[in-house]
Amino acid sequence: MKKLKVPMGELALIEQIRRGSRRNSPTVPLGIGDDCAILRPPAGREVLVTTDFTLENRHFRRDLHPAESVGHRTLARGLSDLAAMGASPLAAFLSLALPGKMLATKSGQAWVERFFLGLRALGDQYSVPLAGGDTAESPADLILADIILVGTAPLGKSLRRSGAKAGDALYCTGRLGGAAAELAGMFAKGRMARVGATEGHPHLFPEPRIGVGAALLRRGLATGCLDISDGLSTDLTHLCVESGVNAEIDAATVPIHPLAAKLGPEAGLKMALHGGEDYELLFAAPATRKMPRSIAGVEITRIGRLTRRQQRQPQIALVNADGSRRPLEAAGWEHFSAPPARKS
Amino acid sequence: MKKLKVPMGELALIEQIRRGSRRNSPTVPLGIGDDCAILRPPAGREVLVTTDFTLENRHFRRDLHPAESVGHRTLARGLSDLAAMGASPLAAFLSLALPGKMLATKSGQAWVERFFLGLRALGDQYSVPLAGGDTAESPADLILADIILVGTAPLGKSLRRSGAKAGDALYCTGRLGGAAAELAGMFAKGRMARVGATEGHPHLFPEPRIGVGAALLRRGLATGCLDISDGLSTDLTHLCVESGVNAEIDAATVPIHPLAAKLGPEAGLKMALHGGEDYELLFAAPATRKMPRSIAGVEITRIGRLTRRQQRQPQIALVNADGSRRPLEAAGWEHFSAPPARKS
Repeated sequence: MKKLKVPMGELALIEQIRRGSRRNSPTVPLGIGDDCAILRPPAGREVLVTTDFTLENRHFRRDLHPAESVGHRTLARGLSDLAAMGASPLAAFLSLALPGKMLATKSGQAWVERFFLGLRALGDQYSVPLAGGDTAESPADLILADIILVGTAPLGKSLRRSGAKAGDALYCTGRLGGAAAELAGMFAKGRMARVGATEGHPHLFPEPRIGVGAALLRRGLATGCLDISDGLSTDLTHLCVESGVNAEIDAATVPIHPLAAKLGPEAGLKMALHGGEDYELLFAAPATRKMPRSIAGVEITRIGRLTRRQQRQPQIALVNADGSRRPLEAAGWEHFSAPPARKS
Repeated sequence: MKKLKVPMGELALIEQIRRGSRRNSPTVPLGIGDDCAILRPPAGREVLVTTDFTLENRHFRRDLHPAESVGHRTLARGLSDLAAMGASPLAAFLSLALPGKMLATKSGQAWVERFFLGLRALGDQYSVPLAGGDTAESPADLILADIILVGTAPLGKSLRRSGAKAGDALYCTGRLGGAAAELAGMFAKGRMARVGATEGHPHLFPEPRIGVGAALLRRGLATGCLDISDGLSTDLTHLCVESGVNAEIDAATVPIHPLAAKLGPEAGLKMALHGGEDYELLFAAPATRKMPRSIAGVEITRIGRLTRRQQRQPQIALVNADGSRRPLEAAGWEHFSAPPARKS
């Protein structure tokens, strides 16, 4: 990690970022400006670390996504991984490569400022300081970001993907398919999205479920948990692989986001099952355990159950209201295999 | 953080990486495969975090650098930042974006395997497990890596840039300018470097000074320390800025690497003063403190002193053997302002 470095004349902008980000505290006694940042996790807690790329033309498009949304989404991806394990965020680190031309133009500088506005607004909401990172000139005319989140959880209590059991009930938070539906609408319009507030924009401004994850951990409610970043079908497959179980989803119970429901029942369900980037949580709990209808203000829906697995590969069945069933293939977001239409 | 994801058919390669990397231990009880990795730093220690990009055509060239060197250098950059603060490495995380075509070809797969060979060989040397990260398809035909190192140090003892005092003597480890000299030679040849062993290749296989940093911390020898990644003149400026001092370097004492010395005394000194990526340590210590001639098997050279600063900006003087002096400008590696010839 190095100090943020920029060409002569642009130091003002980066110094502003640095000042805005440097709030040394008992848990982050040293932030940006040395070879490493120093963190002091509270005693009795384990440390969780996650890294996530946000790459232009892969995770966002400069012509469609407002810069504030890119900053928000960059941080949200990492926060959601902490939420999935029930962890509390401690600090964020950002590696950011910008095209050389960008900091030489007013519009480029404005983009970077707005990116940090979006990132910092979400960071402030969860009291996550930007404690360091790296900057470089991008080797292409593309913005490249990598976010690193460090969090903590009580020793040995972090929620994992591997603890779910056959017989457990399956739950999700919030409503699904909204991010895919909003993104599809953005592609259809083909121009920069305009947003007044962050609410109601599941793709542009997803809300990481930090409060829910922390409550699940604190109250010992979940046997296994992860976030729905790649789509329910894909992430449920991850849960089944790591926990050694199969799963059944009751189609009629899947909570479909209004933006997806507007597209009709079939398209809406498809987006809820396979659309990625909702950043809701998917978790399992003993079927006999009473589950609140909402946790930390977020609705909780029972959407199915885990079953015993005999085969090597996990199988997931979609069960209709009439009892008929069909296999559900993992068909969510998959890097290296996403069709061009999904490259956002 | 997610499981490493690749197209069907290439899972074998990545599973191999995953298996080779997953060695859960008391300090890393959960590595690759969940939303976050879990670390358990030993009690009584603070946690250090650093992130560093390694971007194709910016930090390396696929036609000049062997893949093993790229893997080695990627990890070495992060390890060197830990060394600079006297920290012991705990775990590494890698965000890696590869061109889509790469994993579809034998040569591309071989490159990735050799990249990980280089990275893992250095990691094994310092017992640093690869505990997680992210993968993505690169949005350009370029390899993009971001390494994150997490280390630990005794609470409150980490070496910082800010503790050096006027009157302190200035030291560096090893010999300087070798990395710049080797790189210049590679550019002149214009073809892939061939190497048998990693030793004697200060650019391709730099050796992070983990042992020296740890000893400086343990023996309380340094008042301020950082690594020489951007070049002595630039990194000494950082030390002076953070510690509020000026500096004098005795030109005749600067230890010049044999590869740089071969180019003649003037060119050699220039490379030692301004050439980046040597990854040696630069540190200050009270002038009266006896300093060993070598620490952890690495030679230590006294190269100057720190002096009182009256001005706002730090000033560094190069003092010749005859007592004449001239200002030394920071002219090392600077992202966003590097000339095209330096874009390696």
